[in-house]
Amino acid sequence: MDKRIEFGSSAERWGVFEVRLSGPADGNPFTEQSISGVFRGENESVETYGFYDGSGIYIIRFMPSFEGEYSFEIRSSFSKETYRGSFKVKPPSKNNHGPVRTANTYHFRYADGTAYYPVGTTCYVWELQSDEMIEKTLDALERSGFNKIRFCVFPKHYIYNFNEPRSYPYEGRPMDSSVLTPDNFNEYGGCAEGNSWDLTRFEPGYFRHIEKCITALGRIGVEADVILMHPYDRWGFSKMPRSADELYIKYVTARFGAFRNVWWSLANEYDLMEHKKPEDWEHYASLIAERDAYSHLCSIHNCYPVYDFSRPWVTHCSMQKQDIYRTACEINEWREKYKKPVVLDEIAYEGNIQYGWGNITAEELIRRFWEVSVRGAYATHGETYTENEDMIWWAHGGELCGESWKRIKFLLSILGETPGIGLREKQMAWDELCAVPDDEKLAEETGYHLFYYSFMRPVFRKYYFDDSVKYRVEVIDTWNMTVEDRGVYTGTFKIDLPSRQYIAVRIRKADTDRAQS
Amino acid sequence: MDKRIEFGSSAERWGVFEVRLSGPADGNPFTEQSISGVFRGENESVETYGFYDGSGIYIIRFMPSFEGEYSFEIRSSFSKETYRGSFKVKPPSKNNHGPVRTANTYHFRYADGTAYYPVGTTCYVWELQSDEMIEKTLDALERSGFNKIRFCVFPKHYIYNFNEPRSYPYEGRPMDSSVLTPDNFNEYGGCAEGNSWDLTRFEPGYFRHIEKCITALGRIGVEADVILMHPYDRWGFSKMPRSADELYIKYVTARFGAFRNVWWSLANEYDLMEHKKPEDWEHYASLIAERDAYSHLCSIHNCYPVYDFSRPWVTHCSMQKQDIYRTACEINEWREKYKKPVVLDEIAYEGNIQYGWGNITAEELIRRFWEVSVRGAYATHGETYTENEDMIWWAHGGELCGESWKRIKFLLSILGETPGIGLREKQMAWDELCAVPDDEKLAEETGYHLFYYSFMRPVFRKYYFDDSVKYRVEVIDTWNMTVEDRGVYTGTFKIDLPSRQYIAVRIRKADTDRAQS
Repeated sequence: MDKRIEFGSSAERWGVFEVRLSGPADGNPFTEQSISGVFRGENESVETYGFYDGSGIYIIRFMPSFEGEYSFEIRSSFSKETYRGSFKVKPPSKNNHGPVRTANTYHFRYADGTAYYPVGTTCYVWELQSDEMIEKTLDALERSGFNKIRFCVFPKHYIYNFNEPRSYPYEGRPMDSSVLTPDNFNEYGGCAEGNSWDLTRFEPGYFRHIEKCITALGRIGVEADVILMHPYDRWGFSKMPRSADELYIKYVTARFGAFRNVWWSLANEYDLMEHKKPEDWEHYASLIAERDAYSHLCSIHNCYPVYDFSRPWVTHCSMQKQDIYRTACEINEWREKYKKPVVLDEIAYEGNIQYGWGNITAEELIRRFWEVSVRGAYATHGETYTENEDMIWWAHGGELCGESWKRIKFLLSILGETPGIGLREKQMAWDELCAVPDDEKLAEETGYHLFYYSFMRPVFRKYYFDDSVKYRVEVIDTWNMTVEDRGVYTGTFKIDLPSRQYIAVRIRKADTDRAQS
Repeated sequence: MDKRIEFGSSAERWGVFEVRLSGPADGNPFTEQSISGVFRGENESVETYGFYDGSGIYIIRFMPSFEGEYSFEIRSSFSKETYRGSFKVKPPSKNNHGPVRTANTYHFRYADGTAYYPVGTTCYVWELQSDEMIEKTLDALERSGFNKIRFCVFPKHYIYNFNEPRSYPYEGRPMDSSVLTPDNFNEYGGCAEGNSWDLTRFEPGYFRHIEKCITALGRIGVEADVILMHPYDRWGFSKMPRSADELYIKYVTARFGAFRNVWWSLANEYDLMEHKKPEDWEHYASLIAERDAYSHLCSIHNCYPVYDFSRPWVTHCSMQKQDIYRTACEINEWREKYKKPVVLDEIAYEGNIQYGWGNITAEELIRRFWEVSVRGAYATHGETYTENEDMIWWAHGGELCGESWKRIKFLLSILGETPGIGLREKQMAWDELCAVPDDEKLAEETGYHLFYYSFMRPVFRKYYFDDSVKYRVEVIDTWNMTVEDRGVYTGTFKIDLPSRQYIAVRIRKADTDRAQS
């Protein structure tokens, strides 16, 4: 072996094992060279691709899904040799639960079996801000309950976000953005004049930086819902030719694929990308499937018409609400139609900007989160306050200044106490929105019911399940974040409620509740 | 003429002209006698029926639709003579605009052409309470903007309403109601044991009292949306045989039909009346049509499935919301389907009772009223606060103690400023709920747009209609009931908004606005 091989430090289960090779730096290594490998353990054999990281360094990464002895064989276009090695995979470190997978048809869990309830937020280009801002975002995320963040690989050109990214994904130079104002930004859509890129030459530092961010997210237990393409563009990255798109998808899947906390969001508001056709999305989805050795979660997000989520590569429905008013009421229909988890990745944001997608109250966002949850689906947060236009959470990250994030953390704690994994809506009286465990057996065993009263303000409610079983009753104030134990009841019972909005009632068999455990 | 004839005092256009005759009091005058007449003026000839009012008095009423000379001929079963007379109809007194008719397909106006925007309330048996309570209700109605009230002819047996009515519609006696509690009331549904009625003998005083109430409503400009049948019953009036129902419908149409402010609501929650079949409703509707000489507005109100409002006798859709969450968003579909005015007679009430239909906030009820209005339909109010269970507005009337009624009065003042009659939703940006005059020509001429931002809190909005016309802009705070004139704009203009919920913006051509008039 005449080339230097560096081993990544993390040979833990679901960690990133990395092999670095020296190779040619001349010509165009991105298009002219290739590197691939096979990683073999007792329980798996994984073929994967490496990438050029600049300065004559080639990297191939591997995420082992099992503990124990592994060996690898790496081949490259720049050498006839096969690079071989072996390493031992240790148990995962604390808080490493592996990648998130779908579970129980409509829900998620980590590879180690731990339930995962996505409560995500949206900071489209938080990772392209200054180091200081990125630190602030990570601090805010760590204090919050958010365990997923949606963000874009490419920089973003959109209202409240005209600043330059910290760097660019390709060699070349951007247009002069000093001409931009909030009023003229639409004139610079797509590939505006003045941009000059070599779309065959990536800037590895751009992606290396994103990997650092993905790693930092992983460290605090946050999934990276990586948006590969989006229409908010003035540099032309939204209308690259197919060859460039393919090169890009191969590059990012090779770079990011071994990170356990990565999800692929093929596009944000795919339907606004007028240069892409339906067959393009299908083509790029198959390319991801081919290049991602770990079958990360993968979806595509709409603006208006939802994508055909029945496509086999779609692991979950990453939806945007369909209407100002119809936001969560169609969840049962979507669940039935697609038989996949439903994640309302855009259900309007807490804020006060001019657009209807970004100016609802914290109360209403929390109400939607609860309604969505009780209907057996998931929602995603965002903050769009105009008070500091240079630092809007939904675009830049920074500090959370709204009121919904705390209540979402509280909701997560309630979801985490669901028996088994995931809820579904149970048909009750017409004015009773009620969730039970999605697993029928567990629902029966635990008698778990989570009633949610939304904007209603009942002064009391009556409940009846059966005549003999004892049920523990808790009254949950979803806004004030309190859980009040009301004791144990049998038969028909009446529970006084506070005549306020946003109240939930949790009822479960007394021998399954926390008081007993 | 050997019988005494008394003439009603009100011979004004759309007033009640009444002829009273003495006749037999023996036997059963309700079933054995009949009286009918023809009233002829220059522009109309109306055949109508009279009724027995007890104590040997027979009455026949007539509502003239025109001014001028009228004559009448009355025939009865108890005399071979034809009673003849003539009278002069004066112009209507102030505030008498005639009966309400449908107009412009989806809207209403009075017979004299004045626009009528129904903002109704619901007090199911206000007229069966004490005189003191009735006075309170009338006072409250007069202070409010409500111009329609839904109430039942028959007494009501339902949660929060187990007290006896002030009297009964038939000779006989009711069950002993001292056994009733809020928990056992369902055991006494329909015709409970202990009731004993002669369903062929009305108590004329019961109906005479209701007429007084209808007249009092008319005096303060309130339409009486009279519910003829309903399921909330312990006396058996909801399950009378067809012969008794027919006798009843003939009796009430003869008694109430000449009052200009009467609307017929064939039933409330018709689908809960298990003793009635679809063909019964159609039969009773034809009987009303046959007996009502004035074609009063007529509909039927659902609990769950809406009635087939395309039936020709249905003048307007008297709907109940279909869902906790889907309340107003289907209005366009209903308008399209039925091509009739849509009145959401139950869209949930302001209150805090245990049921979802009666525990929303004033803010949410007002939001629904505005949403409904901007979508070109109408809504009905109710109050269901538990603080004084003996006096819940929705059941008993009394005093309005909520916060929505004042804002509904404000909404009425805004609706009253619509050019022409009635609004329709105009398709705009997806986050823009906007109404324009339903009359296309007027919409064009006035440039009138009423934007409603509901639970959204835009910090500003931009508008563009054309490049040359001057538009006056007013910012309406639908909760705080203010209209702020923001001046005149042309081309694209940006209007700063208060980042609060429940804001509307009214824009119209500057030469059509009030500032010019």
